Amino acid sequence: MVCKSGIDYSLYLVTDRQLLAGKDLLATVEQAIRGGVTLVQLREKELCTREFYHWAQRLKTVTDTYGIPLIINDRADIALAVDADGLHVGQEDMPLSVARQILGTEKIIGVSVSSVEEALAAQAGGADYLGVGAIFATATKRDADSVSLPGLQRIKEQTRLPVVAIGGIQAANVRRVMETGVDGAAVVSAVIAASDPYGAALTLTRRIKEC
Amino acid sequence: MVCKSGIDYSLYLVTDRQLLAGKDLLATVEQAIRGGVTLVQLREKELCTREFYHWAQRLKTVTDTYGIPLIINDRADIALAVDADGLHVGQEDMPLSVARQILGTEKIIGVSVSSVEEALAAQAGGADYLGVGAIFATATKRDADSVSLPGLQRIKEQTRLPVVAIGGIQAANVRRVMETGVDGAAVVSAVIAASDPYGAALTLTRRIKEC
Ligand code: NI
Repeated sequence: MVCKSGIDYSLYLVTDRQLLAGKDLLATVEQAIRGGVTLVQLREKELCTREFYHWAQRLKTVTDTYGIPLIINDRADIALAVDADGLHVGQEDMPLSVARQILGTEKIIGVSVSSVEEALAAQAGGADYLGVGAIFATATKRDADSVSLPGLQRIKEQTRLPVVAIGGIQAANVRRVMETGVDGAAVVSAVIAASDPYGAALTLTRRIKEC
Repeated sequence: MVCKSGIDYSLYLVTDRQLLAGKDLLATVEQAIRGGVTLVQLREKELCTREFYHWAQRLKTVTDTYGIPLIINDRADIALAVDADGLHVGQEDMPLSVARQILGTEKIIGVSVSSVEEALAAQAGGADYLGVGAIFATATKRDADSVSLPGLQRIKEQTRLPVVAIGGIQAANVRRVMETGVDGAAVVSAVIAASDPYGAALTLTRRIKEC
């Protein structure tokens, strides 16, 4: 169990098995952690419950080895099943209040928001961090609302929660994202689809730390 | 909360919104309960978590009104979220042991099985009842294993748990099913797709009670 306070959200990896292009998920995540990823979210929409559970179990072995928090997307049952560090809920997922009731106060709960209103509602509802996006256009989450960099900055300024930006973030644009004052950048394809996930994560880490 | 012992599994309704043909889900379930349905399972594979949660909430209002147990298919998080009476897991869902750990001993947990081996494993693992099928060919669950009536009878004879048969059960064949000695018949389209769900449930109830 990772302590909830003092979590480093700076390089937040979101999985997507469909972007691996033949690479192994666990090896990819492990290399990414060695390259500087500070937190891992398992996000897999196409799996049956049993497969999701098995991947969560295996991923937790990796994140536990490195002392990195594991967050499960959407599924509080899977988060409970593997005793993950937390849950991430979108606006189409379980309401925050219900998720909190199921998971208790010790688990991290993050909420996807794309406006100051949603951000303040999540904050008032007891979210631990905010995922804000999509910042740049992305092929992995086509239905996401979009948030500009000034919009991201407004959300950061008007809330007191850690803010993680998400959506199309790559080495080439991560600096612009971090300069808004947010606490972290979430990446998917920039690391998962990279032929060298370690190198990709390392480059991102360096650019984030320079900010 | 329905007491776990003494549950009447005789006419077990499984929902499928795609078979409603324009009818309202809640009204259909309510009429089915008035017609004799003794237990309701919410099974909806195509919904996002928030919609699943909302349907579960609304359905629970109906089942609570009639003192009928509500079982959630697959999703322990939804079962917890609405304080449902139980969870039904298939072989592709969460392992029984994990579901039990999440839900605790007071919740009903049913397991889909299609062989004596799976039935005995579920029994040893602490299942409260068995769902056995598919007994007859069905359009709603094409990928299901099939179980003959003699196979159903063997599972009932070799286990001590309540057995609910499922798969293509209709008024025309429910008597043959119940004559194997099982504790109940699960129906989907026979009630959900019926133009008169009350009448359909009533006919099924009478045929089941005659056995
Ligand atoms: Ni429920």
